[in-house]
Amino acid sequence: MQLYNYFRSSASFRVRIALAHKGLPYDYHAVHLVHGAQRAPDYLAHMGDSLVPALDIGGGAVWLNQSMAIIEYLDETHPQPSLLPGDALARARIRGLAQMVACDIHPLNNLRVLRWLVHEGGLSDDTKNLWYHHWVRQGLDAFERELALLAGERARLGMAPSTLCWGDRLTLADCCLVPQIFNAQRFGVPLDGLPATLAAYEAALAQSAVQAAQPSACPDAQP
Amino acid sequence: MQLYNYFRSSASFRVRIALAHKGLPYDYHAVHLVHGAQRAPDYLAHMGDSLVPALDIGGGAVWLNQSMAIIEYLDETHPQPSLLPGDALARARIRGLAQMVACDIHPLNNLRVLRWLVHEGGLSDDTKNLWYHHWVRQGLDAFERELALLAGERARLGMAPSTLCWGDRLTLADCCLVPQIFNAQRFGVPLDGLPATLAAYEAALAQSAVQAAQPSACPDAQP
Repeated sequence: MQLYNYFRSSASFRVRIALAHKGLPYDYHAVHLVHGAQRAPDYLAHMGDSLVPALDIGGGAVWLNQSMAIIEYLDETHPQPSLLPGDALARARIRGLAQMVACDIHPLNNLRVLRWLVHEGGLSDDTKNLWYHHWVRQGLDAFERELALLAGERARLGMAPSTLCWGDRLTLADCCLVPQIFNAQRFGVPLDGLPATLAAYEAALAQSAVQAAQPSACPDAQP
Repeated sequence: MQLYNYFRSSASFRVRIALAHKGLPYDYHAVHLVHGAQRAPDYLAHMGDSLVPALDIGGGAVWLNQSMAIIEYLDETHPQPSLLPGDALARARIRGLAQMVACDIHPLNNLRVLRWLVHEGGLSDDTKNLWYHHWVRQGLDAFERELALLAGERARLGMAPSTLCWGDRLTLADCCLVPQIFNAQRFGVPLDGLPATLAAYEAALAQSAVQAAQPSACPDAQP
């Protein structure tokens, strides 16, 4: 498989974690978002959405897009270790947590959005940073509340407390949470008052797949 | 099942389509987003993310959140008619298209974001509208390019052309596209140059499940 990727892209990071966790080999192709490489005609010929990550599975197929869709595909085609373990309700919990990050936090804070706010919207750097902090913090507070609700449910059902986002095995939810926390740290967002979220993050970060996938380990990494 | 919902919310509309398509009965509970009902303590006690839609499946379970996660749950627990039909690759196409709307377009344009831009960001109404149009149009142009790529792939594989987003059966992708087009029309975004996207939208709109789920059919609908 060929992964088209940018070291600092949170969505790319999610897919790298999934590939590493499943032990799937791939070739890494850097797409330099800051230089606009995602808009090059050769790239657009394969990727309607002009974003990263993309996964070329070979055989002439159109490249797979959208990080969560890619991870679901990898999980269906390489089921073990599963990133969506459990019954339908467990999977709803995992997908719900993943989408709290991937739909409610990350889309508001990626590079193209921050650039528009400054260049087209005329926002000052300070107001842009206020925007960033507001949505990341509001989203992580929601994530923390959701983890508390789910911890209560697990207790009622006699299940062991989660050590990661859901249970004690790496899931799609962790694939989404870890890059978001990396991103928040890079922008200096205070992370106080988020004990369950940070505990899940730390537990995920201790896993070798997450270590192997982190931005600093990428071929195109810059300090 | 109890659906917590706002008639004008695109994410709520997605779940209504899925419930109607599967013929699943539910009680409708209006959550008036403009009045802040989603932040009421009674609601927050069940919903960490303080958003709509939420689905209470009963039995004391924490309410399900996140529209795509809810639809996947409904599809796993009530498999026919499937909203994610086909093999792993087909499902990756359907999820990829759904997420192009749910991760790349809609999060930038919902009520809470537009409000922040005006009240905290200080954007004029004109600049706010420019923002709205920019992301909706950029996202739909990407969607159109992706449909063209996938049409080419179907032709190469000897598959019939799609009449909806993917194939000729309603899928998760249609559940996401239809509300986004409704929303774009409400804000007056020009929809020229999107023939495949609008053809899929029109074909979905002709289905009785979509008719039954549309905002004007909701108990809390306002003109």
